[in-house]
Amino acid sequence: MAARKKSPAKAPAAKPAKVDSEIKRRNAALDGMTVELIKKTASGVHQEIHAHKKPDLAFPVRSLKNVSYSQKTGYFEMGRYKKVRTLTVNTVKSFAQTLRMMGLSKELVEGNDFATKRDAYYQSKNWEEARFDEQSESDTVMDDIEALFSVQGVSREQLRFIPDEHGGAVAGRLMVLDPDRETGVIERIDCTRFGSGAYSIPSTVEHLSFETDAKFVLAIETGGIFQRLQSHKFWQTANCILVSMAGVPTRATRRFIRKLSDECRIPVYAFVDCDPYGISNIYRTLKVGSGNAAHLSQFFCVPQASYLGVTPQDIVDYRLPTHPLVDVDIKRARDALKNDPFFKAHKPWQKAMDQLLRMGVRAEQQALAKWGLNYVIEEYLPRKLEQTATFLP
Amino acid sequence: MAARKKSPAKAPAAKPAKVDSEIKRRNAALDGMTVELIKKTASGVHQEIHAHKKPDLAFPVRSLKNVSYSQKTGYFEMGRYKKVRTLTVNTVKSFAQTLRMMGLSKELVEGNDFATKRDAYYQSKNWEEARFDEQSESDTVMDDIEALFSVQGVSREQLRFIPDEHGGAVAGRLMVLDPDRETGVIERIDCTRFGSGAYSIPSTVEHLSFETDAKFVLAIETGGIFQRLQSHKFWQTANCILVSMAGVPTRATRRFIRKLSDECRIPVYAFVDCDPYGISNIYRTLKVGSGNAAHLSQFFCVPQASYLGVTPQDIVDYRLPTHPLVDVDIKRARDALKNDPFFKAHKPWQKAMDQLLRMGVRAEQQALAKWGLNYVIEEYLPRKLEQTATFLP
Repeated sequence: MAARKKSPAKAPAAKPAKVDSEIKRRNAALDGMTVELIKKTASGVHQEIHAHKKPDLAFPVRSLKNVSYSQKTGYFEMGRYKKVRTLTVNTVKSFAQTLRMMGLSKELVEGNDFATKRDAYYQSKNWEEARFDEQSESDTVMDDIEALFSVQGVSREQLRFIPDEHGGAVAGRLMVLDPDRETGVIERIDCTRFGSGAYSIPSTVEHLSFETDAKFVLAIETGGIFQRLQSHKFWQTANCILVSMAGVPTRATRRFIRKLSDECRIPVYAFVDCDPYGISNIYRTLKVGSGNAAHLSQFFCVPQASYLGVTPQDIVDYRLPTHPLVDVDIKRARDALKNDPFFKAHKPWQKAMDQLLRMGVRAEQQALAKWGLNYVIEEYLPRKLEQTATFLP
Repeated sequence: MAARKKSPAKAPAAKPAKVDSEIKRRNAALDGMTVELIKKTASGVHQEIHAHKKPDLAFPVRSLKNVSYSQKTGYFEMGRYKKVRTLTVNTVKSFAQTLRMMGLSKELVEGNDFATKRDAYYQSKNWEEARFDEQSESDTVMDDIEALFSVQGVSREQLRFIPDEHGGAVAGRLMVLDPDRETGVIERIDCTRFGSGAYSIPSTVEHLSFETDAKFVLAIETGGIFQRLQSHKFWQTANCILVSMAGVPTRATRRFIRKLSDECRIPVYAFVDCDPYGISNIYRTLKVGSGNAAHLSQFFCVPQASYLGVTPQDIVDYRLPTHPLVDVDIKRARDALKNDPFFKAHKPWQKAMDQLLRMGVRAEQQALAKWGLNYVIEEYLPRKLEQTATFLP
């Protein structure tokens, strides 16, 4: 028998074999569906050409005007407006480029590989007349393809176009299941075993699965607080999973949290600075997505998220040191109240934002350090976690 | 016997016990030295006060004028200029703040804890008259203390003041040894076992040790290339360790690479974009440090680093797609040639920079994708690694 070099650190007792085959089956099915959709789109074009018709492709319009906030699904949704691109003398190059980009995607899925936006741009240098002269052109074509396939429930990452940026850091009571690119053997990554370090989320997470007995995911704004909770093993006492967002979370981080929360049916609590940026940019983006990228929300938003803190009321209750709101804060808060469908749909958020504007101050999550560096671990978080039902939506 | 829940995934055969005790001994010795230095500095002040003299503290001047590039040590070094702060009526507050900040550091070392700049600022809110009104004030005091102790070979991280930012991502043939904060038990983190993810470097790495049989560390500029090399397990075929710098590397990433290279005596090869930013900002900072933070270089620079690519000559040899140099590129390259002690000391770099300016173009590392997405793995890197002696210094 071959040596089992890849044996898991702490394998769950009986079920790995079943889980492994299930993951493989699911990933293969997803890839199969993606390839079918690409083929179907391309052969539609092919048939029209053969029938001497002008083929066209209909892309959803990507703009705020074509967005609605659905309380039921819990996220920003794209409307029905589409722009149709018909094959003519003027559009022949971008039409060809769109089809070649779809062809690249098909190759990537079939070869179990991936490409960044930059990779795709440079790949095109061998497409002769269809090559891109500037990366901005290939980015636009990729964005269009993303929107086109998002209508069918296929994300850009499933098309194997991945972002150039890292995901965030993760630690806690979580086993990440990651099938090897070549062999398909599942690597089990135990996120309790990284000392003061952490698991760094890969650029794409579509192929990952999860096992956990944690009660919730804590999504944290700052690296400093994440490091404190990780070094002090807060995940052990609170039975949770820590995710460092490091500001506005990247695509990979948002998708990771969403998949984890969906698959393991656990809630997500956001712990960010109490300022209009933390609330309306970081938290709102995490929960419902962003207006100009509504076609992504179905994959990337985390409707299961609620807001642990820091709340405006916490500033009062915990007598936190504050900074005055500056003009950009005030503008951001007023904009949110006036124009943002998410805040307009949630009374408790309107109250909280009003309170913040009235107080005229903001507080960072690390302000809790006034009461001791580990006050956040020993007092603040335990108290908060006793009243999750009162978290802002 | 208690269950060995924390048994290592792949423990090296015989020596863990010895290594563990050695790590503990070394970390305890470092902490002991740090506390002694703090006490010595503080009691110097104390004695002068008792002798009815005006106590003073001498801080090295932090500016480019007080910097020299030593070819022998291989990094930017701070000169001998100091500014002396004497305790007077005018300086009493900042003098007291400096001493309290040193006191906080001593508490942190003794309690095996740490604080970010923000944490320290908020902690001061309980220092009554010595509290800081703005974080910029506490940052300045912390920078002064850092410079003061750096003269004695003690870094800010040893003083337990840690950055708020993450380190980079790591994958490959490396075992990271990380003692638990409370129990001292060593966690062994196997960086071959992260699937498509990676090990995320903690904010501070002073307490880490390493075991590896890798031949070199590959420090990579972009997340996209890192993800490609990691997903395709390049570290296995090339027997190396991959580190993602994600642009200019953070303090923790630089210190991690330096410690790893020192402790395991392996070289570091940098793989970055071929442009003045990649060369003079990312690579030069990694290798010798930066001018206005020369007191950090002794801890953070990586004199063992050399430059694998992308070189200006690679643009020619591999017929890479390029972008024209823009004004800021040209200015940066000319500045480096004229004013940067590192480039002035290395003829091969002057030639390379001249060549880049003459060609008037730059190339991204992902430009290699023109020849196929995995050309970088299958052709470029293997060829380069056969001629490490020719790497730019």
